[in-house]
Amino acid sequence: MEYSGKLVVFEGPDGAGKTTQVKLAAERLQKMGYSVVMTREPGGTRLSEEIRQLLLDPANREMSPVTEALLYAGARSQLVAEVILPALASGKIVLCDRFVDSSLAYQGFGRGLDLEMLRQVNRFALDRLGRFCTILLDLPPEEGLERGKKREKDRLEQEDISFHRRVWEGYHFLIKEYPERIRVVDASSQPEIVHQQVWKHLSAFINGSDQGGVF
Amino acid sequence: MEYSGKLVVFEGPDGAGKTTQVKLAAERLQKMGYSVVMTREPGGTRLSEEIRQLLLDPANREMSPVTEALLYAGARSQLVAEVILPALASGKIVLCDRFVDSSLAYQGFGRGLDLEMLRQVNRFALDRLGRFCTILLDLPPEEGLERGKKREKDRLEQEDISFHRRVWEGYHFLIKEYPERIRVVDASSQPEIVHQQVWKHLSAFINGSDQGGVF
Repeated sequence: MEYSGKLVVFEGPDGAGKTTQVKLAAERLQKMGYSVVMTREPGGTRLSEEIRQLLLDPANREMSPVTEALLYAGARSQLVAEVILPALASGKIVLCDRFVDSSLAYQGFGRGLDLEMLRQVNRFALDRLGRFCTILLDLPPEEGLERGKKREKDRLEQEDISFHRRVWEGYHFLIKEYPERIRVVDASSQPEIVHQQVWKHLSAFINGSDQGGVF
Repeated sequence: MEYSGKLVVFEGPDGAGKTTQVKLAAERLQKMGYSVVMTREPGGTRLSEEIRQLLLDPANREMSPVTEALLYAGARSQLVAEVILPALASGKIVLCDRFVDSSLAYQGFGRGLDLEMLRQVNRFALDRLGRFCTILLDLPPEEGLERGKKREKDRLEQEDISFHRRVWEGYHFLIKEYPERIRVVDASSQPEIVHQQVWKHLSAFINGSDQGGVF
């Protein structure tokens, strides 16, 4: 699909600072005059937020890994149809907190689901979406969990350290799988330092010197 | 997957009498001493019923066709994991009101989604499910809609006659696609007459003279 806007996704383990980095990037882009849409996954539309509640509610212990993967894909397809594709078509920059790589890392590597099946399901969810850029905020899972200790944990955050270690290994597998699309930033520094690294990749993608890649 | 139970699915357009036929078959099987589980789609588990509410609520007008297909598949995978596979493993007969053919007929033919994509998504949802038997209660869509006139319509039932005609054509395409698995019964007669036809196919599948087929 041809469109004038750009999609930049922020990925990484819980506690890596994705929300903060989305905000810092959005503020800087807006100051430069860009029209920016910030969103998050799962969620970002009324219906996707309802699906989010099912996904993250710790009471839904019986949810099968396959159901989990399908619900994430369902929340995603609604966000793509209702928010991302229209925003890109009208030339906006979309910054998204988590996207399709989370499904490969969490449901594929964390839960052990078949990676090729997950890819097919998510290609279906992404519909006509073309090239985008993924910025991976890299942080060892132990450090991410340490940072997140204070707040109440959702259903996936409650998983043990071995789960989060598999997710981290999944992200590192994906870096090799999608070299055109995924850019890695060390997330262990202070937010302002991390932002400078994020900005280097993000601005290259926005100005077209980095073309990004497809899923 | 090897199991001693049997899955029999009842399919067909709205108003074809699926619920009635499931009940009649269940009563007869129970009288013969079989252990029977009756279920329905979308739904059949706590989580799947929550997904059902999202799917059928007429307020969710903005739901994209892809999201609809993924949510049906998610409700299905939970039903398979939580109800169908365990029941089959313990030797029970499972009678299900709608299943995977509904997704091909409604989302594939009704909504026009790519059939091969839908197949992949639903193979993922069906997990280790093996052979089963589908009894298609065949009724022209005009007649089904006429029968359903009295009650309040859900989001899919509210679609116009051309949608329901495409669904019907979809079912007839599937009869040719899955000759091992789908058995057709004329649903325009009285329930007892329809039941005799249903029973002919169902009992052949239960006693093993008809092996059914996979999805």
